[in-house]
Amino acid sequence: MDQLQQVDQYFTNHREKHLEEMKEFLAIPSISSLSEHKPDMQTAADYLANLLEKAGMENVQVQPTPGHPVVTAEWLHAEGRPTVLVYGHYDVQPVDPIELWDTEPFKPEIRDNKIYARGSSDDKGQVFMHVKVLEALLQTEGKLPVNVKVIFEGEEEIGSVHLDQFIADHKEELATDVVLISDTALYGPGKPAVCYALRGLAGIEITVKGSKRDLHSGVYGGGVQNPIHALADLLSSFHDEHGTISVEGFYDSVRPLTDEERATYAELDFSEEDIKEETGVKELFGEEGFSYLEQTSARPTLEVNGVFGGFSGEGIKTVLPAQAGAKITCRLVPDQDPDEIVRLLRKHIEANKPAGVDVEVAEFDKGKPFITPMDHPLIQAAGRSYETQYDAKTAYVREGGSIPIVSTFDEILGAPVVMMGFALSTENIHAPNEHFHLENFDKGLRVVSDYFHEIKDYKK
Amino acid sequence: MDQLQQVDQYFTNHREKHLEEMKEFLAIPSISSLSEHKPDMQTAADYLANLLEKAGMENVQVQPTPGHPVVTAEWLHAEGRPTVLVYGHYDVQPVDPIELWDTEPFKPEIRDNKIYARGSSDDKGQVFMHVKVLEALLQTEGKLPVNVKVIFEGEEEIGSVHLDQFIADHKEELATDVVLISDTALYGPGKPAVCYALRGLAGIEITVKGSKRDLHSGVYGGGVQNPIHALADLLSSFHDEHGTISVEGFYDSVRPLTDEERATYAELDFSEEDIKEETGVKELFGEEGFSYLEQTSARPTLEVNGVFGGFSGEGIKTVLPAQAGAKITCRLVPDQDPDEIVRLLRKHIEANKPAGVDVEVAEFDKGKPFITPMDHPLIQAAGRSYETQYDAKTAYVREGGSIPIVSTFDEILGAPVVMMGFALSTENIHAPNEHFHLENFDKGLRVVSDYFHEIKDYKK
Repeated sequence: MDQLQQVDQYFTNHREKHLEEMKEFLAIPSISSLSEHKPDMQTAADYLANLLEKAGMENVQVQPTPGHPVVTAEWLHAEGRPTVLVYGHYDVQPVDPIELWDTEPFKPEIRDNKIYARGSSDDKGQVFMHVKVLEALLQTEGKLPVNVKVIFEGEEEIGSVHLDQFIADHKEELATDVVLISDTALYGPGKPAVCYALRGLAGIEITVKGSKRDLHSGVYGGGVQNPIHALADLLSSFHDEHGTISVEGFYDSVRPLTDEERATYAELDFSEEDIKEETGVKELFGEEGFSYLEQTSARPTLEVNGVFGGFSGEGIKTVLPAQAGAKITCRLVPDQDPDEIVRLLRKHIEANKPAGVDVEVAEFDKGKPFITPMDHPLIQAAGRSYETQYDAKTAYVREGGSIPIVSTFDEILGAPVVMMGFALSTENIHAPNEHFHLENFDKGLRVVSDYFHEIKDYKK
Repeated sequence: MDQLQQVDQYFTNHREKHLEEMKEFLAIPSISSLSEHKPDMQTAADYLANLLEKAGMENVQVQPTPGHPVVTAEWLHAEGRPTVLVYGHYDVQPVDPIELWDTEPFKPEIRDNKIYARGSSDDKGQVFMHVKVLEALLQTEGKLPVNVKVIFEGEEEIGSVHLDQFIADHKEELATDVVLISDTALYGPGKPAVCYALRGLAGIEITVKGSKRDLHSGVYGGGVQNPIHALADLLSSFHDEHGTISVEGFYDSVRPLTDEERATYAELDFSEEDIKEETGVKELFGEEGFSYLEQTSARPTLEVNGVFGGFSGEGIKTVLPAQAGAKITCRLVPDQDPDEIVRLLRKHIEANKPAGVDVEVAEFDKGKPFITPMDHPLIQAAGRSYETQYDAKTAYVREGGSIPIVSTFDEILGAPVVMMGFALSTENIHAPNEHFHLENFDKGLRVVSDYFHEIKDYKK
């Protein structure tokens, strides 16, 4: 029995125990954006550190940051072999609207070979999978085929605000030949995908301020600007009727898709009907001149994620609210710069400011877009490892989501980033009833174990 | 000592007791729009009935409706004298945003000769004042100078949904020579005003529906319509940049202001600076071509009272919400018809429906606008009664608010409506820290008592 067969047997024998541990980990409500969950963030980090210790990793540390802690570990005894830095995040999104969950977001439950919990797919389930790969390799042969460093952060869902600095401060300790991340999705059920590009992120909050207090619409209505009207005008000004973003200069830095890329997109298995079924929308709608796959992964967007102002309770309240606001995020593509995009948004808002109100802009998350060559040997090796477990050709794709830290790894550590994800796009991440297919957890354990063997002879 | 002097003395002697009772009445959270306050509506109605009984009114009844109860009473022993129907409402607006109240909305507190509580000014404080006028007249001389009927409803803030039917069903019992209402404002501190016209109301709620669940903006962003974008486009389409309503046909039935009316408006004491100071806005904004006073009382409006959709918590959530919505009310002027206006709004929404979403429209409150001749003897008498207590000329004005039931009184009972209000426009009605100046409560008691004497010889 070679090591991979032993490892396979180890996963089979320990499956029940591993799932119990995964449930314990998912039960910790590690919502990074809500300050009341700060203690839970520490609990989740400590839990993860303990798992790494038990797996046999060395120098396991829960390292404080000005925000949530970073968990690090290493095993560096594969002399002459390359080093892999495994990245993931143990923080999760908020759970609103809570009433739409079938079971509680932090009481994990397995139904139909899927585990339901906030973070099960994005990204605690996949982080857990990596820890178990290390455990299996170390517990069966007492060693790893490559050197491994681990960095799990707690601020991915809020823009990795302190990780850039952390990586810069620990550049030597984190030095690596490749960064391995499992926070993307398969191309579809049973269809592996290696992701070679990600969108970046820039976020702002707009607050439109009118009167100093809510006003009676019968007394003042008609004589003062309504902040909701002003906000609607502003939000409406961001797109034209064809879905194209109207902010001046927004597309200036977008690297055009190459003919080869557009051909690759066109070849990918895709059904408009599946997306409609999945989302429940009656028709798709996006920037004219691009396919759905291009729109959602290779084109930038400006989305209003939340809007609020005035009365939203039952019935009616004839009020002119004192203020109204909106939360906005842009998904960015190479070579857009988040700081430049925020500058353009501010300029647009200033130029389109409606009369009779003040407008304030606050800045949120920022992350640079990322792209890496499709034909890199470490990426091609990932594709081969997938194919040992999945009965389908690996797709090489861009993804529409953002992992802001990817471009930091690229820039500070100078290492290629390989994204091997095991989620599915239908797993309701960031939404009620998030879940993770255990079939892909099981296969993922074996794919990643294989990948460490597959790249052990890699030289830069 | 004539009766009015005795009455004056009665008010002075009982002031402390009356204020304690007013506090008890205001402490009942009679919010008509929120179903959890249904029992409080009954409590408030019963409390009011008890006050009327104790005042010496006869045939006091708390009459059920399919919504909240109507309180009625009468005293009909002034043979050969006219009959006055006193109308008011004991329901109040919701209290959001509760955190902006300095003291609790349902724990009335007197500070600086003002009573602070939800409903103190609109309209429970003024309803209470009328009951005390009846009490004082009946307790001092044992009779009233005119016949009086009373009708206090519990649904004014939700559009008097069941009162039209109630009045139609009780047309005979409610027959009257004049309807007297105190639910409007003085022209300013120390400046009496009789109101001869009111705006009507039509309300809708728009719900824009996209996907069947909230979607991740990284995965789907760019490929499906965002309901918030669609809603912003719709809301933005309701006005042009000059504040004019863009809904086709909206102004068609508006009765133009006469030259005399515009001249009266121009003569009224008015300061733009006062409005800015009062509201905190830096500049006024309204329909081009009309003065502020015209805009807020003689011109129709379309105001978004609330907007909601997606994530509004702390931080950011990169979500495409499944739906977004807005609550809208229009203030209408003679001769606009609320049903016709809602039809025009529906048509506008249909014609401007953005791609990729469904739009649903629900209908709310409706109330017809009202106008009555300025030179009617019952209106002129009201002006004279004010002048017995206030050291200023009475202004004859239109008001921008809506009392939907006024046109019903006009239509079903065929009686002129006289609006003698004692509120001030600065009393934060429908907003946090609502209050009522007790100086106007004290004067109001005497003005209304005088008015009953003033009109006792009136013949149709």
